[in-house]
Amino acid sequence: MQKIGVLTSGGDAPGMNACIRAVVRSAVQKGAEVIGIRRGYSGLFSGDCIKLNRRAVANIIQRGGTILESSRCEELKTVEGRKKAIEFLKQQDIEGVVVIGGDGSFRGAAAMAEESDLKFLGVPATIDNDVYGTDYTIGFDTAINTALEAIDRIRDTADAFERVFFVEVMGRLSGFIALEVGIAGGAEEIIVPEKETDLEKLCSTLREGFRKGKRSSIVVVAEGNEVEHTMQMAHYVQHRLKVSSRVCILGHLQRGGSPTARDRVLATRLGIAATDGILNGKHGHVVGERNGKLVYIPFRDTWEKKKELDKFSLESCKMLAG
Amino acid sequence: MQKIGVLTSGGDAPGMNACIRAVVRSAVQKGAEVIGIRRGYSGLFSGDCIKLNRRAVANIIQRGGTILESSRCEELKTVEGRKKAIEFLKQQDIEGVVVIGGDGSFRGAAAMAEESDLKFLGVPATIDNDVYGTDYTIGFDTAINTALEAIDRIRDTADAFERVFFVEVMGRLSGFIALEVGIAGGAEEIIVPEKETDLEKLCSTLREGFRKGKRSSIVVVAEGNEVEHTMQMAHYVQHRLKVSSRVCILGHLQRGGSPTARDRVLATRLGIAATDGILNGKHGHVVGERNGKLVYIPFRDTWEKKKELDKFSLESCKMLAG
Amino acid sequence: MQKIGVLTSGGDAPGMNACIRAVVRSAVQKGAEVIGIRRGYSGLFSGDCIKLNRRAVANIIQRGGTILESSRCEELKTVEGRKKAIEFLKQQDIEGVVVIGGDGSFRGAAAMAEESDLKFLGVPATIDNDVYGTDYTIGFDTAINTALEAIDRIRDTADAFERVFFVEVMGRLSGFIALEVGIAGGAEEIIVPEKETDLEKLCSTLREGFRKGKRSSIVVVAEGNEVEHTMQMAHYVQHRLKVSSRVCILGHLQRGGSPTARDRVLATRLGIAATDGILNGKHGHVVGERNGKLVYIPFRDTWEKKKELDKFSLESCKMLAG
Amino acid sequence: MQKIGVLTSGGDAPGMNACIRAVVRSAVQKGAEVIGIRRGYSGLFSGDCIKLNRRAVANIIQRGGTILESSRCEELKTVEGRKKAIEFLKQQDIEGVVVIGGDGSFRGAAAMAEESDLKFLGVPATIDNDVYGTDYTIGFDTAINTALEAIDRIRDTADAFERVFFVEVMGRLSGFIALEVGIAGGAEEIIVPEKETDLEKLCSTLREGFRKGKRSSIVVVAEGNEVEHTMQMAHYVQHRLKVSSRVCILGHLQRGGSPTARDRVLATRLGIAATDGILNGKHGHVVGERNGKLVYIPFRDTWEKKKELDKFSLESCKMLAG
Repeated sequence: MQKIGVLTSGGDAPGMNACIRAVVRSAVQKGAEVIGIRRGYSGLFSGDCIKLNRRAVANIIQRGGTILESSRCEELKTVEGRKKAIEFLKQQDIEGVVVIGGDGSFRGAAAMAEESDLKFLGVPATIDNDVYGTDYTIGFDTAINTALEAIDRIRDTADAFERVFFVEVMGRLSGFIALEVGIAGGAEEIIVPEKETDLEKLCSTLREGFRKGKRSSIVVVAEGNEVEHTMQMAHYVQHRLKVSSRVCILGHLQRGGSPTARDRVLATRLGIAATDGILNGKHGHVVGERNGKLVYIPFRDTWEKKKELDKFSLESCKMLAG
Repeated sequence: MQKIGVLTSGGDAPGMNACIRAVVRSAVQKGAEVIGIRRGYSGLFSGDCIKLNRRAVANIIQRGGTILESSRCEELKTVEGRKKAIEFLKQQDIEGVVVIGGDGSFRGAAAMAEESDLKFLGVPATIDNDVYGTDYTIGFDTAINTALEAIDRIRDTADAFERVFFVEVMGRLSGFIALEVGIAGGAEEIIVPEKETDLEKLCSTLREGFRKGKRSSIVVVAEGNEVEHTMQMAHYVQHRLKVSSRVCILGHLQRGGSPTARDRVLATRLGIAATDGILNGKHGHVVGERNGKLVYIPFRDTWEKKKELDKFSLESCKMLAG
Repeated sequence: MQKIGVLTSGGDAPGMNACIRAVVRSAVQKGAEVIGIRRGYSGLFSGDCIKLNRRAVANIIQRGGTILESSRCEELKTVEGRKKAIEFLKQQDIEGVVVIGGDGSFRGAAAMAEESDLKFLGVPATIDNDVYGTDYTIGFDTAINTALEAIDRIRDTADAFERVFFVEVMGRLSGFIALEVGIAGGAEEIIVPEKETDLEKLCSTLREGFRKGKRSSIVVVAEGNEVEHTMQMAHYVQHRLKVSSRVCILGHLQRGGSPTARDRVLATRLGIAATDGILNGKHGHVVGERNGKLVYIPFRDTWEKKKELDKFSLESCKMLAG
Repeated sequence: MQKIGVLTSGGDAPGMNACIRAVVRSAVQKGAEVIGIRRGYSGLFSGDCIKLNRRAVANIIQRGGTILESSRCEELKTVEGRKKAIEFLKQQDIEGVVVIGGDGSFRGAAAMAEESDLKFLGVPATIDNDVYGTDYTIGFDTAINTALEAIDRIRDTADAFERVFFVEVMGRLSGFIALEVGIAGGAEEIIVPEKETDLEKLCSTLREGFRKGKRSSIVVVAEGNEVEHTMQMAHYVQHRLKVSSRVCILGHLQRGGSPTARDRVLATRLGIAATDGILNGKHGHVVGERNGKLVYIPFRDTWEKKKELDKFSLESCKMLAG
């Protein structure tokens, strides 16, 4: 294979740039040409592409966001759309594409792979860490450290009144961020989508904490699927416990920032592996890491199988904080 | 004066510890004894006091929060309450007290000063920067840098869709944080309590930005006095402009964190000045800094006069960002 | 076992406090009593010990350093010294001790274990990551992120002259920090103690970079065993290449700071596991993590076997940066 | 004036980009055209210039370094060199130039102004803060906060042995960084070029600290003019006091990083003021801020007059730390 494409797709994640750099430089090293497709799959429709050489990816390893920009592309969801995209890639003599993103992005790749002889490999990059088959996704470590800093700051506040802080972190369908941040931040409670929330039990845990002499409690809440559920939870608790409750919604700030060492190293390793793979004819998989070893996960697994939250950790956290 | 007290009161602010350290060490240097009164004025009622020597304030200059803890004390609002507090101070042979806090805290000090021969000096410490007569309050610089980091992270996100980010910062009655963060963060719009919000105008400014090619806009919003007004604003804009809008509520995380150099230096200078002042019989004032020089502000001014927001800066910011 | 001790020993590492917290709270949860031994093994000689309950370890999970302080204890190196230490532990009815530190610390534990019926378990905590048998030690992740920040800042500087920056990181005998920081920071060269430095080759690599148009190059250097070898290297390169060279020596600042999420989670997991282990009669081992799973490493292995640096990563880094 | 140039010169400083943005956008707002001259004055010789519109300076307010790059230009030091530079500017129809840099940069501007009818205004930007007539230079606040973080990390280390840490900060000829960092970091001693160092007195201060029970002391040292003087000082103290001494050399990392709020606001204000000034025919001055007010400082003052270090602060710091 002489010419490959690379794109970033879905919600952006810190470390995507480090991955692009690794893909480009390792491909160039092996004599291949790399085309950067801009704004995710949308670049296949607008033709917004750019040749990437070694210099083009200089000084980006430390940058948040993605120099290629990202998007969610509606056109790719139809057969006609994909046909256009496939044609464009063929016109450009691009035989393989490294797709850096989440499971939604891999669906598009899988569909195009089925409908053509183009080769795709995925690299898991999303702050949510909800890609089946890999222990970590690119961006997760940065996001949890960002959220953790927020919690550390809240810990500093020293008002003498009893107070409950609700810190909403990202995670619509999964609680990986909430769990890790909760453990690392020593949160009193962690609310995740994987487990139904028992508000009464939450109140009694918090009440028990105040009884033992705690001045303030921190509850980490994954944003979940219901609009403003953290606000509602806070209102409920304030009303029931007659203590002041305060809400922080971290939102998109978790998606930005310079990637941590871990995210950059993971991005670099997976980027090299994906390039090696695709240049050697490997395709149809996501390149991940499990137990410290490279693994290839079939595209399909990433949306058909659900990565499980570590329930043991959830219990440990409560045991330590409670 | 041989023996002075020191307390922190109201919402806590980064740099309070640096100020306590300066008060204690400069007083000790001059041969005076310092009593730390815990949990703000509440310590006068509970008797929760502690002698502070040089070692007691070692290694705190960099810590957020306050080692003396803070509170809002209801008992001090009645004549009977203050009588008790005054008696307690007299029993302890404390002749003067350095009060580190905001204008609410200075009211209590002023009332006790009127009703006794005790001496009080204030040091302005609140992240809101809304104390009349001083250019900056302790904690403000740290809070704006914290909020700024959040905005920088949001800037990194690179989704290709049009989007408006609303970032709610602290400031119930004043927009100092919002203004400074907005300028430093290059925000498209800044919403402050000092100026009525014209939602239609906000929408047209944002629309104009999108028309010019902006992908995303950032609106910094002071929390203001109405519950959830940022949420409502975001809903309104999303509905009107048909673009996705996202909300971050920074909340109490702005109150924590290690103080910046500026806050530590300000806290140190004002702490030394307040100690010098009170040991030399100065009282009834807040020690502040205006135009780089130490000033003494009568207690009364801090709640009777309103510190004005710099309207010129507000306009400049829009000019640069628009 | 009803009563256990916990101590931190050797160079301190971020995350030690998170580990102490986990040991204390999980032990208390299981009905055991925990004694904190202060200043490492020295506390066994001075008797500087303190009972630790749940509250004693509140609000420390985010703190750098160690609340128990650390030291390197000479007295423990003699049989007589250890006899005294053993007696002290027996007097205190302490049957088992969790030792948080590096391989030097485990030697002391192993020797006492041989000379008594006391039980010891180790938890690997050192920023150097040079403990055989565990993938990561507590403190390593924080240290590399700290060093990485330094490198990112240097990258920002934009002088138009050709320049080589030498950044010295910790690592007397091992290059784990240098390697990880070098990869994550995109360094042009990484100098590690595991590999002899060929100054001529270094010069030719750097020269080649300048020839290709690089304005500045970054060389990450592990401090190694020779005094001021980074300074000497910088002088040499400046002289040979006729380019300006600049040196940063990060030194002890890599040992401090609030631990990252990863270090806190690792510290928490290993702390719980060590407590579980020792209360269940497990001893003579270090509790580590390999490939995501808990492992028990015999004390002896930690000083008899050498953890290997990943040579593949070293080459990859150069391939990407060169 | 219809067309102005802007350049950054000398050692780069965080906030230069925020200043470029303010110059460009406020000039465009007033109908003027802005040419960015790259690599400082060197761009006048190489012709490396670029038209800057509003979009060109989008998303740079938070970036360290300078998008225009910087240099020290030898050619400008001769009359012939300046003649060439002047011709180039005239060819380009550039009537005025905003020079963002330190006193060395203003010398070049002043010379060209004397030898032509071109107009120049300066904006003080250097981390050293050693520009006469302005209270602060752009970049100073960021640099001290960066250095401060390093000191805070060192404070965390908890070895029980007596130890002296020497932290070398930037400042060849002036001690502004050292002083501010020393006060904010609670350093035991501050070594500045403005005051001869008495090593015996340093030793006795440190000895006195150990005698009082201090475990470790931090000495902040401005780099000064002698090569490796911090290293030598550390050796001397180690030898004399028989305590371990450790050295951190922060070097260029102080020059990078995202600018603080204060630096961005200062850069924005001064950038707007310089543009206003030059478009209204003001020239031959540096635009600074003194006591919170805009001031115009004659170019000549910046190299003929020496900005004084605040000796009172130096003494205060020692009083508090000693």
